[in-house]
Amino acid sequence: MRDGERHRVVVVGAGFGGLSLAKALKGADVDLTIVDRNNFHTFQPLLYQVATAGLGADDVAHAVRGIFHRRDDVTFRLATVTGIDHDAHELHVDGDGRSIPYDTLVLAAGASTNTFGVPGVDEHAFAMKTLPEAIAVRNHVLARFEAASLDPSSVDDGALNVVVIGGGPTGVELAGALRELFSMVLSHDYPELDVTRARVILVEATGHVLGPFSPPSRSYARGRLSRMGVEVRLDAAVAAVTPDAVHLTGGEVIPTRTAIWVAGVRANRLADVVGLPQTRGGRIEVGHDLTVAGHPEIFVIGDLAAAPDGTGGVLPQLAPVAIQGGTYVGHTITRRLDGRRPRRFRYFDKGTMATIGRDAAVAELPHGIRFHGRLAWLAWLFLHLMYLVGFRNRANVFVNWSYNYVTWDRGARLIVRPDRLGEVDRP
Amino acid sequence: MRDGERHRVVVVGAGFGGLSLAKALKGADVDLTIVDRNNFHTFQPLLYQVATAGLGADDVAHAVRGIFHRRDDVTFRLATVTGIDHDAHELHVDGDGRSIPYDTLVLAAGASTNTFGVPGVDEHAFAMKTLPEAIAVRNHVLARFEAASLDPSSVDDGALNVVVIGGGPTGVELAGALRELFSMVLSHDYPELDVTRARVILVEATGHVLGPFSPPSRSYARGRLSRMGVEVRLDAAVAAVTPDAVHLTGGEVIPTRTAIWVAGVRANRLADVVGLPQTRGGRIEVGHDLTVAGHPEIFVIGDLAAAPDGTGGVLPQLAPVAIQGGTYVGHTITRRLDGRRPRRFRYFDKGTMATIGRDAAVAELPHGIRFHGRLAWLAWLFLHLMYLVGFRNRANVFVNWSYNYVTWDRGARLIVRPDRLGEVDRP
Repeated sequence: MRDGERHRVVVVGAGFGGLSLAKALKGADVDLTIVDRNNFHTFQPLLYQVATAGLGADDVAHAVRGIFHRRDDVTFRLATVTGIDHDAHELHVDGDGRSIPYDTLVLAAGASTNTFGVPGVDEHAFAMKTLPEAIAVRNHVLARFEAASLDPSSVDDGALNVVVIGGGPTGVELAGALRELFSMVLSHDYPELDVTRARVILVEATGHVLGPFSPPSRSYARGRLSRMGVEVRLDAAVAAVTPDAVHLTGGEVIPTRTAIWVAGVRANRLADVVGLPQTRGGRIEVGHDLTVAGHPEIFVIGDLAAAPDGTGGVLPQLAPVAIQGGTYVGHTITRRLDGRRPRRFRYFDKGTMATIGRDAAVAELPHGIRFHGRLAWLAWLFLHLMYLVGFRNRANVFVNWSYNYVTWDRGARLIVRPDRLGEVDRP
Repeated sequence: MRDGERHRVVVVGAGFGGLSLAKALKGADVDLTIVDRNNFHTFQPLLYQVATAGLGADDVAHAVRGIFHRRDDVTFRLATVTGIDHDAHELHVDGDGRSIPYDTLVLAAGASTNTFGVPGVDEHAFAMKTLPEAIAVRNHVLARFEAASLDPSSVDDGALNVVVIGGGPTGVELAGALRELFSMVLSHDYPELDVTRARVILVEATGHVLGPFSPPSRSYARGRLSRMGVEVRLDAAVAAVTPDAVHLTGGEVIPTRTAIWVAGVRANRLADVVGLPQTRGGRIEVGHDLTVAGHPEIFVIGDLAAAPDGTGGVLPQLAPVAIQGGTYVGHTITRRLDGRRPRRFRYFDKGTMATIGRDAAVAELPHGIRFHGRLAWLAWLFLHLMYLVGFRNRANVFVNWSYNYVTWDRGARLIVRPDRLGEVDRP
């Protein structure tokens, strides 16, 4: 650290981990630079509602600079990190290539989609990790309906089928929301189509949906999905995705022009360019203090990190782990500057929730407390509103959810095609 | 008309004119097909607020099919019209080329930007007639600020300057909103930049802004813009736009990387492909009944039409003209089917308004009633909320305006780049 200047903390990623770190460092004697490839924070848990036209794209994102309006100690840098110079303590970034010096570095770039090399997924399946990806799904699904309206018999050939691959919380939420969009909204929008013949199929490689949940929650979710009309295929692995079908390893071929891959995540590409030891899924290995071995100046938090869970495994890739990691690292940096010994990071599991559809969710709290149905659904709504960043987003989401609930409608079903977004490579 | 089947009305364009026609035809003994190249209606008067991050993109657009959920008589077709077969009474469209037959055709495709052949405008200036164009302006302005934050001295070279070309209502509203965005929001977002040195320049070829208004309103608007910090250049024609400057005919060169051209409109390209007589600005000539001479089966309404104003001129290209035209044509079609003689179209001028900024607008009603300031601004807000389509959009816009007013913030300042919108040419 340089004499006479403030300690420079740089965090890569303005997701849950990065924002939580920034909050924890409020008032600390450091300068914080937040680096992200987008100028906004994305509230990933609600991306599936953007994809299914329940929320507008602007409702689930918030400009990073806007969050830190009143923080003199926070600087934002729009850039993609391309590497680290460990000797100079500098981040390399794209664009004009002006590097970013740090005293302490926090890597919090999150996860991206893991296709596990399944043929055709990269080329023919949609992902759901970013706001543009969610908008692309919305555009594509609606465009499929417009195309089918010219050729109603194509519905029987699978023109409107959607195959959601991956039965985790995102897959369950997306499949349920798609089925509701089809039944409640698009069936009225397209009276010329027999929308009941548009299939939503959830494909899961293991024997159950909602793997991280308890057996009762899993079976509730599965039953609810089935009653809503989602076809659930368990023990079904995907062999290949083609432009007009998903091939399962068992031989079944599901005709579809809309395959959405939410079957796995891997560490953000950042993990591959920083020269640090990686483990399963590309995650960077860290110790109990969330630092990289031999690099006490580098912390890794959230989905990017493989952090020990204390029982021989690693912590799961969940928002609360990232949030608590950010808080811990903020406090650890302060303790170090004060000359105090850092503590170990201990993740406190407050429970998990997933929503299946209207009035239907599952919630599991510590000590075996479980509930599902409307109460869980209301709790889910409430918690997501609370965690949304910014009053405006909260108010907008509340308005839209109220509207959706009362009218059974989904308001944001626009096809805004990228090729119509105008010229952007002006100097 | 074919025996035993309902009269087929086809309207091209889901703007103010098309929607108003559909409303007027409710309950009539006709089948209505609405054709549009987008699946949504765009509320054009508020596009400038999307461009300046005051509203989200989804707030000012509404899916056409959603508007007519409960109307069995209305069909929607997503297509671009490429021509008319006048003998067969069929529209030709792009895509699979399936033509659309009509008994009565209503052309309501609106206007697009008219560059008047000024060099460089097509290549280097932004337009503001469509939702993607407004999003492109927002992306570009914010990206300029991000780039400048790496090189603060570039602000003095004009890196952040915006030149709005055209001092009509759109130009005045846009220039005012940009100045407010800069002063109230971006100056806090970018403390490293001297945002007071980012100029907003409004260039107008005539001797006054707000041409269609009375001299007192014009001078109020001009004074207000100046006090807000907008530089108003009157009697200033643009000679050329280059990637980094706007050249005026008088010789002045204004450095800018953001030129926005709102200096003129011309009829939508549709007018050029339908084989009907055109006049100034490409508009299609119609008579007092809004039909084309020799084509009683073809009506033209709104910005696409050159309709006689009764005093030797043509009606202006304003939303109320389109709305009243749609209502008139709907009633005329019904009268014809009932065997009654059509009436002449008479436009009733209810007045016009334009907003300059917070608490500042001008309003002019018939009989010389004029007012400006906060009262006019509140009236403007109220009327625009009223005319927005759909409860959800109204509620969202109300929430956002309330938020903007109370916090002096603009919430939707996201850079969502089209090249990140994912692959879309899947089959």
